Amino acid sequence: MRNTALVVSAHSADFVWRCGGAIALHGRRGFDVTIVCLSYGERGESARLWKEEGMTLDRVKASRRREAEKAAAALAAHDIRFFDLGDYPLELDREAKYRLVEVIRQVQPAFMLSHSLEDPYNTDHPYATRVALECRMIAQAWGHNPGETVLGAPQLYLFEPHQSEQCGWKPDTLLDITEVWEQKRAAIECMEGQQHLWDYYTRVAENRANQFRRNSGGQAGGREARYAEAFQAVFPRTVDGL
Amino acid sequence: MRNTALVVSAHSADFVWRCGGAIALHGRRGFDVTIVCLSYGERGESARLWKEEGMTLDRVKASRRREAEKAAAALAAHDIRFFDLGDYPLELDREAKYRLVEVIRQVQPAFMLSHSLEDPYNTDHPYATRVALECRMIAQAWGHNPGETVLGAPQLYLFEPHQSEQCGWKPDTLLDITEVWEQKRAAIECMEGQQHLWDYYTRVAENRANQFRRNSGGQAGGREARYAEAFQAVFPRTVDGL
Amino acid sequence: MRNTALVVSAHSADFVWRCGGAIALHGRRGFDVTIVCLSYGERGESARLWKEEGMTLDRVKASRRREAEKAAAALAAHDIRFFDLGDYPLELDREAKYRLVEVIRQVQPAFMLSHSLEDPYNTDHPYATRVALECRMIAQAWGHNPGETVLGAPQLYLFEPHQSEQCGWKPDTLLDITEVWEQKRAAIECMEGQQHLWDYYTRVAENRANQFRRNSGGQAGGREARYAEAFQAVFPRTVDGL
Amino acid sequence: MRNTALVVSAHSADFVWRCGGAIALHGRRGFDVTIVCLSYGERGESARLWKEEGMTLDRVKASRRREAEKAAAALAAHDIRFFDLGDYPLELDREAKYRLVEVIRQVQPAFMLSHSLEDPYNTDHPYATRVALECRMIAQAWGHNPGETVLGAPQLYLFEPHQSEQCGWKPDTLLDITEVWEQKRAAIECMEGQQHLWDYYTRVAENRANQFRRNSGGQAGGREARYAEAFQAVFPRTVDGL
Amino acid sequence: MRNTALVVSAHSADFVWRCGGAIALHGRRGFDVTIVCLSYGERGESARLWKEEGMTLDRVKASRRREAEKAAAALAAHDIRFFDLGDYPLELDREAKYRLVEVIRQVQPAFMLSHSLEDPYNTDHPYATRVALECRMIAQAWGHNPGETVLGAPQLYLFEPHQSEQCGWKPDTLLDITEVWEQKRAAIECMEGQQHLWDYYTRVAENRANQFRRNSGGQAGGREARYAEAFQAVFPRTVDGL
Amino acid sequence: MRNTALVVSAHSADFVWRCGGAIALHGRRGFDVTIVCLSYGERGESARLWKEEGMTLDRVKASRRREAEKAAAALAAHDIRFFDLGDYPLELDREAKYRLVEVIRQVQPAFMLSHSLEDPYNTDHPYATRVALECRMIAQAWGHNPGETVLGAPQLYLFEPHQSEQCGWKPDTLLDITEVWEQKRAAIECMEGQQHLWDYYTRVAENRANQFRRNSGGQAGGREARYAEAFQAVFPRTVDGL
Repeated sequence: MRNTALVVSAHSADFVWRCGGAIALHGRRGFDVTIVCLSYGERGESARLWKEEGMTLDRVKASRRREAEKAAAALAAHDIRFFDLGDYPLELDREAKYRLVEVIRQVQPAFMLSHSLEDPYNTDHPYATRVALECRMIAQAWGHNPGETVLGAPQLYLFEPHQSEQCGWKPDTLLDITEVWEQKRAAIECMEGQQHLWDYYTRVAENRANQFRRNSGGQAGGREARYAEAFQAVFPRTVDGL
Repeated sequence: MRNTALVVSAHSADFVWRCGGAIALHGRRGFDVTIVCLSYGERGESARLWKEEGMTLDRVKASRRREAEKAAAALAAHDIRFFDLGDYPLELDREAKYRLVEVIRQVQPAFMLSHSLEDPYNTDHPYATRVALECRMIAQAWGHNPGETVLGAPQLYLFEPHQSEQCGWKPDTLLDITEVWEQKRAAIECMEGQQHLWDYYTRVAENRANQFRRNSGGQAGGREARYAEAFQAVFPRTVDGL
Repeated sequence: MRNTALVVSAHSADFVWRCGGAIALHGRRGFDVTIVCLSYGERGESARLWKEEGMTLDRVKASRRREAEKAAAALAAHDIRFFDLGDYPLELDREAKYRLVEVIRQVQPAFMLSHSLEDPYNTDHPYATRVALECRMIAQAWGHNPGETVLGAPQLYLFEPHQSEQCGWKPDTLLDITEVWEQKRAAIECMEGQQHLWDYYTRVAENRANQFRRNSGGQAGGREARYAEAFQAVFPRTVDGL
Repeated sequence: MRNTALVVSAHSADFVWRCGGAIALHGRRGFDVTIVCLSYGERGESARLWKEEGMTLDRVKASRRREAEKAAAALAAHDIRFFDLGDYPLELDREAKYRLVEVIRQVQPAFMLSHSLEDPYNTDHPYATRVALECRMIAQAWGHNPGETVLGAPQLYLFEPHQSEQCGWKPDTLLDITEVWEQKRAAIECMEGQQHLWDYYTRVAENRANQFRRNSGGQAGGREARYAEAFQAVFPRTVDGL
Repeated sequence: MRNTALVVSAHSADFVWRCGGAIALHGRRGFDVTIVCLSYGERGESARLWKEEGMTLDRVKASRRREAEKAAAALAAHDIRFFDLGDYPLELDREAKYRLVEVIRQVQPAFMLSHSLEDPYNTDHPYATRVALECRMIAQAWGHNPGETVLGAPQLYLFEPHQSEQCGWKPDTLLDITEVWEQKRAAIECMEGQQHLWDYYTRVAENRANQFRRNSGGQAGGREARYAEAFQAVFPRTVDGL
Repeated sequence: MRNTALVVSAHSADFVWRCGGAIALHGRRGFDVTIVCLSYGERGESARLWKEEGMTLDRVKASRRREAEKAAAALAAHDIRFFDLGDYPLELDREAKYRLVEVIRQVQPAFMLSHSLEDPYNTDHPYATRVALECRMIAQAWGHNPGETVLGAPQLYLFEPHQSEQCGWKPDTLLDITEVWEQKRAAIECMEGQQHLWDYYTRVAENRANQFRRNSGGQAGGREARYAEAFQAVFPRTVDGL
């Protein structure tokens, strides 16, 4: 059986900036990574498109979807699903939550990825994470669609928000993504409407790599890593060695 | 080269209750685990001995040392060193800190273990951890005893305090110690002066194992584990996969 | 006038593990303790039942209700009410909230008991507590059903979650339940579907008793207590002496 | 273009106690300050009125509205709008949120003011703040009512809750309101139903002024200020000098 | 045997502002309350005296001592002891700590009172509290001066700092001091050099009383209290009823 | 009278990476900025030098001093003082503290700058900040060297640590340093022994500038800033307008 992972992304570009490296890397490691985009970020994260003459919501959504599909392909993600639930604000009714539960149960992820628990700039982000926790719980319930295989206890990693310190987010896991950096940068460049973020997140990756080196070897320098991503785990790890 | 680990224990019994399982388990995994007891806990943690007729400080210390040596042997620790710095309160001057730095550099631990960062009941405990962090930093300094091999960047795990919630301690790592439980229990029973804690820490291990199962498999039950220990990591992990 | 207390339990077994001792003890002290079970925990906390052939939601609920009624009887609770609102996820619309407000006003509790404010494993738990706080506020409003007796300012105690440190829960009150332990254990044994928790919560009670002794007398040993429960108070106490 | 500010007040009296000085002061400084009262506080904060014979919800609301309008006039506020959404509990559906977004876009505030992020006594208060953050985000979205002028990035100041320490509120800004104190006191005295709070909030203002003096000059005394208000900023300031 | 309590005050006036009511009240309740002033606050809290012509350190100390003795008498404290250790900064060597341990053991307090755990304005305050915790621990040690009666496990209450929210202090206990207010005000007026604080702390007491009423009875008003003091408990309470 | 500011830097390079822009910018604004380097960072932050043949402590210190003086000149700092107290660990006895107090009183800074309050990687950093707070307090004391001008109440800004989220540091102030960026980069390039940090802190400045733009104008873009520094204020600001 192949390993699997699941990304829950509030808007269709979040997965690229925040965990594109993890997606590509685990793809290479033999994981099937599924991405769920709860919305296209069509209202709130598509400023450039809206400045075009005669733009409509459907055209923005179509454009954002194409970008996200291209990015997912660049990262060699196994699957990307668009829930098209609307953004700014994002809201999931019970039916939408059950749809997410269904995906979780199908995927049976070894781990999940979503947003930080707080974000004063963007209330969709922590909302998505609360929903991810709620749906993880429902997916574990034997009485939800009895007969289906229930979920185990996958780790939930919180990926990096835009202004980390303002979001109460403290990374405890640094992932070396050097070997897949070209893929991540290619995915980033699919996001044509947000060019102002391309170099921002490249710099984030370079600085997280500096921290990777420090935490693997002190100021004297640890393992060489040129690009990294940072994550915060919600649940304790269960291990056989420290 | 063998793997190594280092325990910094404020008093001579702390390592038993709090990370005896980790010591024994890593011993089996081929680690040389060195234990530093900064004091014997002779004043503050030897109530039973002090109730004996004609007890002296030296006799308490000797007794505590014998117990700790027996416990270390039961856990198959590689080495145990007694700094005999006094307790209640524990204090390290610069010379004592350099002595700890020297041990750290000799051991070159892959990871370190010490107390929680806070403990309103016992100020020796967080003091020992602050010293461990300070000495870890000194051991990394190229200008401290130039020519010696400097320390890399070992993880510091905080082991479980007596009243966890009062100490601001939140475990993020659960270690299955089932296979070495007999050793840990044997080490515990070396602590003759603290029999009231034998069953307490047995129950802690059983309940942490329940949490291990949950975190590896949900309420539906994960990997069977009957005894576990819990730890909080101070630094981010550097990994190649989530 | 008799003293009263009110328990708000997300699922029908929570009150047993988490405050069964407090219920029984206050019963002996002359309190009428009312328990509100917002759901039966029929979907999420009844794994064993769902593994039986031909199980249905109604049968699970009936079984869970019987268990809870038996447990409430074992604890000599004054009353137990089942709101049957569904679980995983639990949700209260305005009508359901007003129903809870009505119970609160009828009971006029000297204190209330509910879940921790956070729980990443189980979003129903903190949801129940937020609802309890909201309904406490509504019950205090002179303009809600004018003419009814408004609520005073009862303390809200948060009872112990399953993995305390992960839930940001810090107990500030330790209650000696030794004299009613037999009742609590009997109530626990009513929960036939969750036998894996019987000994877990027995160990919790024994270890909280050790902490009771320490906090009433230091390491030298305080008042003998063999079983205890722990709580976190939300509001300041108002006292005539420290 | 005139400067503007926006107050989001859960109940119709909150703006008086908590930021009446800021409103009056910025009025003098040439700001147009708009106040949005999401509810009248008719159910939960009008105890005195409800004690009158034959009181009705409509009469309470009318009375509270009159008081709030008088207070706004005393503070020389530019505008006060009543959303009349009900209180205890306050709830905003999507339409109500869009209504608030519309006001935000019309006002284009240089800064906003609302409640603390937590308040265990009054769940309407943090709810209003969460809504303010959500609507601030929607107002920034280019795809929300395309063609309208989007919002910039106004600071959100959290004004002082009734029991500050219980609400996780930590002020970082002390505003000298000495020159407008008479106006604030006049506005306070418009709240005839809550006379028990008049002197309470006068004392708060006097003690915050003491803190103003200390923080501008140490124990030796800084700038003379006799009345002050305190605020907590949610977002970082962007400055040209420290 | 009479009940006892112990106040550890960094400077000689702190006990008046921060727990004068508790001292007087427990005196009336039959407690012998002992006050330890670690310093006179002669350098840092005597600005008015230093502005006098020809002032010397000894004269400041003598003046501060007289004031504190008068205040202690006004509060009917059992005993006041001056350690004269110097202030700004306050420091205790091991000998000074043992001196405090000796007092703790002599007094055998049912509870202790000291400063908040943080105070960025005044590092002497949290230092005094850390020392109080350390000396409490030493006083519990059977091996410290064997043969003496060891300390039990007294609660440590943190009294109110000057700017509560800046000091991470959250009160959980409100004490009605109405019946002894005249004594507290008399003690306050002994502090001739700090007249600017007389009314400040009177207002604090009045506002804490408002909070006392709320927490004992909601907005509808609880037990009448006109003056109160607020405290934060460090350790869990051990109780027989909630 | 000219405005003044004071930087307290644990090691001789910290001021460059962490607040070089603030120093240069305030220089242009007419501030006299004084830098105190408590140590040269000679043992812990000079790895490259120690790898040279025949290196001695004195030569490292001389080299580090030259670099720091050049950097201070590049930033047009008013003054730089070297306390040469040693590093890894840094320790100040009372005499050294009084020396810092003396500088503080001479400078009479409008604001101070120092390290984050926590840093598990480098205990010298938070130690320097605790000392800065302690010496600020002493400098305010009328009884410390009576007759000298006492200090007012300068803000203390905490500058950015290397791994911000691990240090519990949350910036609340973003300073646009675009106009002095060339000076900061020049100062950075004076640190020849730490070339691995040149680009790291350039990227930090660029990303903080992105955050500056967002916080001054939302995702739609605020004021153009290409380089910025971030700070956390310890004390509340006292203002005349929000």
